[in-house]
Amino acid sequence: MVIGKSINRVDAIDKVLGRAKFTEDLIPANALVGRVMHSTIANGLVKTIDTSKALLMDGVIKVVSCFDVPNIQFPTAGHPWSLDESHQDVRDRKILNQRVRHYGDCIAAVLAKDEIIAARAIAALNVEYEEYPVLLDPAAALESEADAIHLEYPDNILKKTNYTDGDWQAAVHQEGLLQLKKKYLTVPVQHCHIENPVCFAYMEGDRIVVVSSTQIPHIVRRVVSQALGIPLGRIRVIKPYVGGGFGNKQDVIYEPLAAYLTMVAGGHCVCLNMSREETFSSSRTRHGMEFYLHSWVDRKGNLAARYVKGVSNQGGYASHGHTVLANAISGYRNLYHQQAIRQEAVTVYTNICSGGAMRAYGIPQINFAMESHMDDLAQKLCIDPIDFRKRNMMRVGDVDPGTGIICHSNGLEECLNVGKSYIDWQKKRELYREQSGDIRRGVGMAIFSYKTGAYPSAMEIGSARVILNQDGSVQVQMGATEIGQGADTVFSQMAAETIGIEPDQVHVISTQDTDTTPFDTGAYGSRQSYVSGAALKQTCLLFLERIFCYAAERWGCNSIDLDLRKGMLQSKVTGQTVVSLKQLAMNAFYSREHAMHITAESSYQCKDNTYALGCCFAEIEVDIRLGRIKILDIVNVHDSGRIINPMLAKAQVHGGMAMGLGYALSEQMLYNREGKLLNGNFLDYKLPTAMDIPPLQVRFVETYDPSSPYGNKSLGEPPVIPVAAAVRNALLCATGVAIDQLPMNPPCLIKAFQAAGLI
Amino acid sequence: MVIGKSINRVDAIDKVLGRAKFTEDLIPANALVGRVMHSTIANGLVKTIDTSKALLMDGVIKVVSCFDVPNIQFPTAGHPWSLDESHQDVRDRKILNQRVRHYGDCIAAVLAKDEIIAARAIAALNVEYEEYPVLLDPAAALESEADAIHLEYPDNILKKTNYTDGDWQAAVHQEGLLQLKKKYLTVPVQHCHIENPVCFAYMEGDRIVVVSSTQIPHIVRRVVSQALGIPLGRIRVIKPYVGGGFGNKQDVIYEPLAAYLTMVAGGHCVCLNMSREETFSSSRTRHGMEFYLHSWVDRKGNLAARYVKGVSNQGGYASHGHTVLANAISGYRNLYHQQAIRQEAVTVYTNICSGGAMRAYGIPQINFAMESHMDDLAQKLCIDPIDFRKRNMMRVGDVDPGTGIICHSNGLEECLNVGKSYIDWQKKRELYREQSGDIRRGVGMAIFSYKTGAYPSAMEIGSARVILNQDGSVQVQMGATEIGQGADTVFSQMAAETIGIEPDQVHVISTQDTDTTPFDTGAYGSRQSYVSGAALKQTCLLFLERIFCYAAERWGCNSIDLDLRKGMLQSKVTGQTVVSLKQLAMNAFYSREHAMHITAESSYQCKDNTYALGCCFAEIEVDIRLGRIKILDIVNVHDSGRIINPMLAKAQVHGGMAMGLGYALSEQMLYNREGKLLNGNFLDYKLPTAMDIPPLQVRFVETYDPSSPYGNKSLGEPPVIPVAAAVRNALLCATGVAIDQLPMNPPCLIKAFQAAGLI
Repeated sequence: MVIGKSINRVDAIDKVLGRAKFTEDLIPANALVGRVMHSTIANGLVKTIDTSKALLMDGVIKVVSCFDVPNIQFPTAGHPWSLDESHQDVRDRKILNQRVRHYGDCIAAVLAKDEIIAARAIAALNVEYEEYPVLLDPAAALESEADAIHLEYPDNILKKTNYTDGDWQAAVHQEGLLQLKKKYLTVPVQHCHIENPVCFAYMEGDRIVVVSSTQIPHIVRRVVSQALGIPLGRIRVIKPYVGGGFGNKQDVIYEPLAAYLTMVAGGHCVCLNMSREETFSSSRTRHGMEFYLHSWVDRKGNLAARYVKGVSNQGGYASHGHTVLANAISGYRNLYHQQAIRQEAVTVYTNICSGGAMRAYGIPQINFAMESHMDDLAQKLCIDPIDFRKRNMMRVGDVDPGTGIICHSNGLEECLNVGKSYIDWQKKRELYREQSGDIRRGVGMAIFSYKTGAYPSAMEIGSARVILNQDGSVQVQMGATEIGQGADTVFSQMAAETIGIEPDQVHVISTQDTDTTPFDTGAYGSRQSYVSGAALKQTCLLFLERIFCYAAERWGCNSIDLDLRKGMLQSKVTGQTVVSLKQLAMNAFYSREHAMHITAESSYQCKDNTYALGCCFAEIEVDIRLGRIKILDIVNVHDSGRIINPMLAKAQVHGGMAMGLGYALSEQMLYNREGKLLNGNFLDYKLPTAMDIPPLQVRFVETYDPSSPYGNKSLGEPPVIPVAAAVRNALLCATGVAIDQLPMNPPCLIKAFQAAGLI
Repeated sequence: MVIGKSINRVDAIDKVLGRAKFTEDLIPANALVGRVMHSTIANGLVKTIDTSKALLMDGVIKVVSCFDVPNIQFPTAGHPWSLDESHQDVRDRKILNQRVRHYGDCIAAVLAKDEIIAARAIAALNVEYEEYPVLLDPAAALESEADAIHLEYPDNILKKTNYTDGDWQAAVHQEGLLQLKKKYLTVPVQHCHIENPVCFAYMEGDRIVVVSSTQIPHIVRRVVSQALGIPLGRIRVIKPYVGGGFGNKQDVIYEPLAAYLTMVAGGHCVCLNMSREETFSSSRTRHGMEFYLHSWVDRKGNLAARYVKGVSNQGGYASHGHTVLANAISGYRNLYHQQAIRQEAVTVYTNICSGGAMRAYGIPQINFAMESHMDDLAQKLCIDPIDFRKRNMMRVGDVDPGTGIICHSNGLEECLNVGKSYIDWQKKRELYREQSGDIRRGVGMAIFSYKTGAYPSAMEIGSARVILNQDGSVQVQMGATEIGQGADTVFSQMAAETIGIEPDQVHVISTQDTDTTPFDTGAYGSRQSYVSGAALKQTCLLFLERIFCYAAERWGCNSIDLDLRKGMLQSKVTGQTVVSLKQLAMNAFYSREHAMHITAESSYQCKDNTYALGCCFAEIEVDIRLGRIKILDIVNVHDSGRIINPMLAKAQVHGGMAMGLGYALSEQMLYNREGKLLNGNFLDYKLPTAMDIPPLQVRFVETYDPSSPYGNKSLGEPPVIPVAAAVRNALLCATGVAIDQLPMNPPCLIKAFQAAGLI
């Protein structure tokens, strides 16, 4: 039994010793340096770019601009492609854009011999713009006189959707219902992965090779092909080790430019290595969203009807676009859905940095609104917030009518019990009921649900290949990608478990190369252990079948009687050992009678989904005069099905909780009126540091999900979701003040406390 | 029809533009430099190595010596491993050797920051030897008082074999037979591939990665594992583009040392980049062989009985050892084998550089002896040499009783007719019958046969994988290796032909990586287009079957009715197009109903062999006083079955003929009495240059071999075989002087002409 063991990460040694090769480590010494000229206006048009000075500089090879690149608009979102045109991602940008849609838009690029010359050449470019009024938020962009940021979207609405379920009129007109109507606000934040976007490209024959720090190499291949108008088979993408992505590397921004630049350079290698500042201003963000919630509830605490309107600030380009808000709205529905429901969602183009995919894809936004709202309702009803949730929350067998996703397994109630007991809820709620003075304490909580993979919003496919080595060990080649989250380790455990060998006999190939790596859409949506894990399991079983058939032929036994345990083939009937896998392997490779290289490869299309569930409980202390929240204790309790590797799972939760605390308390991208990001660096952007993060508690309630290859459910993204609302609800408990926007930093709190008369 | 077309090499652009990455291009900038200390004696023992001075030098990281390395003897030959111990390659060396067996043996190595420091450190090593008498040739090594070079072989005989067929006594005692008994000598020569041996190694986790310029990556993996005593699955070998090998890179000499050095360096990358001088003195050579031939023939020219004894000068290490001489002896038998035959073969350890595999593996040596002998016999019989050969040579259906190999197809007679006609044989033989003066001309010829692959001497296996891309193009991943010979181009034609797409829709993956590349033993024995080509064909058919099944499911047709032509799936019955492969591919990747990554992988074990046949005709002019032969005209005529790519085939023949001319006229490794190579560099070693090579004529007689995947037979090695004998026989025609040793350089000729009274 390898599943459930905390084995060391398979990449631990290489990462600790500094041996692991990331994209930047692989850039050839003689590569040309590409550098992007970013726009210094947020909305407008490039009229001219004077490149003459730059071209005179020694060491400048080429300057290309928005006037040179292919006249092709392409989609950047890292989604599986759709054969249905109406579901295809929005194609709204070119490799370099003449029409500037945000401050920092890519308008030109230089190719130079080194970084310094490249930077000087960029500084020497002279750009003449035509400027338009800057639209920073949906309200401004939706005004009737606002200019269209994209011609194809004259009212600046990227997409608008509605959803209704249940008998609304009957529900809201029941007698004796309480109502609550409120607005909740979230702001754009950044992923802040350690490794900035970096890629390099070169040509092999008439093909283009792109090496990139990406979550989605197979999708990068498709997007580069689309952006350049070159057949897919002529693009090759390689993904080395990745230093984090959190969704930002589920977008294809710079790879098409790198591919274009190597073509311009006659196939010479060109690298694009983004700075932290460029990453902040010109990659992707978590969308800022506003939610208008209106709920009807009976006196016992049964939800009768819920209305939600979500407005998402998209920024200049569609990226993942409306799907992020749509996911938020869907997440709003499924956690508590046995009522009449009305939902509206609108995603609006503006002139800030584009929102894209970020860990939990819209759910942290809606969860803050929804779980704040639940506490507000509970307070209004004078019901314990936990009891209120237990009364209304998702149960096993529930089906979301919007997506058809079934709740296959559900440990949420047990999670609540664990969290409640850990935080000593009853006693603390009692203790903190009536406080005065500047320092007050509170406990709060929030629950969440999160899907596992993207089905049915998108198709889901994973593929794997298992290759026998002569010593009875195996190579596992996954289309799925290790991006720091521990996927390779988990895959090695899965393969060891299913094949029946020790995990150190499984060598997972960490580099994806679209030329040889089986197709998989990549790391996002907490899909890999569920979808790609199923592909791996299926492939391991196919591999085993081939092993058994070979053994049957060579050693005269019955293939269906065989089992493989700890590297030994045994008869299931007699329990006797037939042969070791190593000896079988040597025969298979070198037999003069029947030699074959035993391998197996298969893809798995997943047509199911399942919810991970859980909660966060936080105990806080607030200094009212300083407007400062201190986390005294915090615990995330997760039902992510069966836990493959508890140590890695815990680390994943730690990371998510820390990200959730930054989201709750300090992080926010600030723009001036011209749309220029004011705090796009690690000095000014308030990412929590190790000093800011309290000890983090993690508990797992293990269920076994029947739709899953190993009983497992999503875990990569969920930990970030409930933290902000739990902290907010703890503050509500401590002070009676309901904060309805993020981040809950001192300026926000001081204002709220003043309004509440606390200061 | 793609087979038979002279499409451009798939690697042409990259090689011409300098983009193609060879091993040296891939050495990381921060790699440590390894350098080998070669012995300065040819036979003896290292008593001590004083490393103290070297270790004090700035930039020297480590010094390791024969006293440090694992006490494991390993085999270096690039053969498929044998499960039968008695057929396993000889394990007679360690990574570094205390017992020195030739001048230039590897006894220590330094690890330094750069090449210069490494060279200085080597110079600073102080070695104390115990010296033994140097044994340069078999005669010396076989003397009863000679010391054993290897303890396990006290009489210095690596191996001795005998073979007899037919009723010898009856055959040689027939009435009226003529007899001829002669000795023929060949000398060691070097491969002279453009790219010297180069490799580097580093660690990934607890695994060792070796990147090497090798013909046989999968075998390197096994040998490194054996040399270090580390399981095979923990070794990974990568083969980039290779700048020629000719058999020298079918040996595993430096890779185990590189792997050992990276372990010593804690996993840091270590490179070993051999100089030309080191390549000459310490890699492999073509064996020098002596042949004692005794033949019985009737007056009509029918061979009655043949005796051959071959003695091979092995040098210090076994390498491929006796198999090369055994192959020569087998080649002697099969070209003319319908007589009583007696064969003896003995391979003797000496103290020169070790003989190994080199293009045509012993056959150029025996061919020189045999085909010289045939002309000597014809002369004695006063029969035209062509008629004499036609009377005795191999015919379709012939079975070599020694190997069981059947002559499946045979265009040899047609080859002779083409060559005879091209060179205007009748007229020229007449014309050159009686000449005087210092300048004389002659025409001569020789025939050859050559097996295709190593079966049944060794097991034969090839594997391939075919991967569909979204645009309907495919990746082809071969275990077989491109080493400059054009294999990748030929594979792309084979795949295009069998799948039914254009060759530019086939992307062959040129880099082999034992982690992911299907198993294949590599480039040697002219096996790849026959064995690996069959694996590829089989895999393409499996791939097609999957394509057709997918189409049948998706478009409701009958899978066995489908055909794929020019990228379109068509009904065989109606001829109508069902769907393009591109459209099918897009569906297979992205369908919401049934998505799958369509790939196919299979191995093919080859249990057959077939002979390529052919001849060389040369017209020469000899300047008797200068002892100098000038080639006036020369043509090779080949039956290599169906020619896959005539342009590449022709280039292959050109290379072989040039190598054959060097072998005939100028090349020879010269040793002094101490066993030191005197001409181990390109100034002193007389490799022919472009100035020395005349225009080379090539003709193909195409047969279709029924045992072969595309009718093709061996072509990589054969062209070198018949050249020396054809030139020698032309000289015999010109002067009446029979030269029975190589090279036929001025010293040799002057001596022979003096002996013959011509000067």
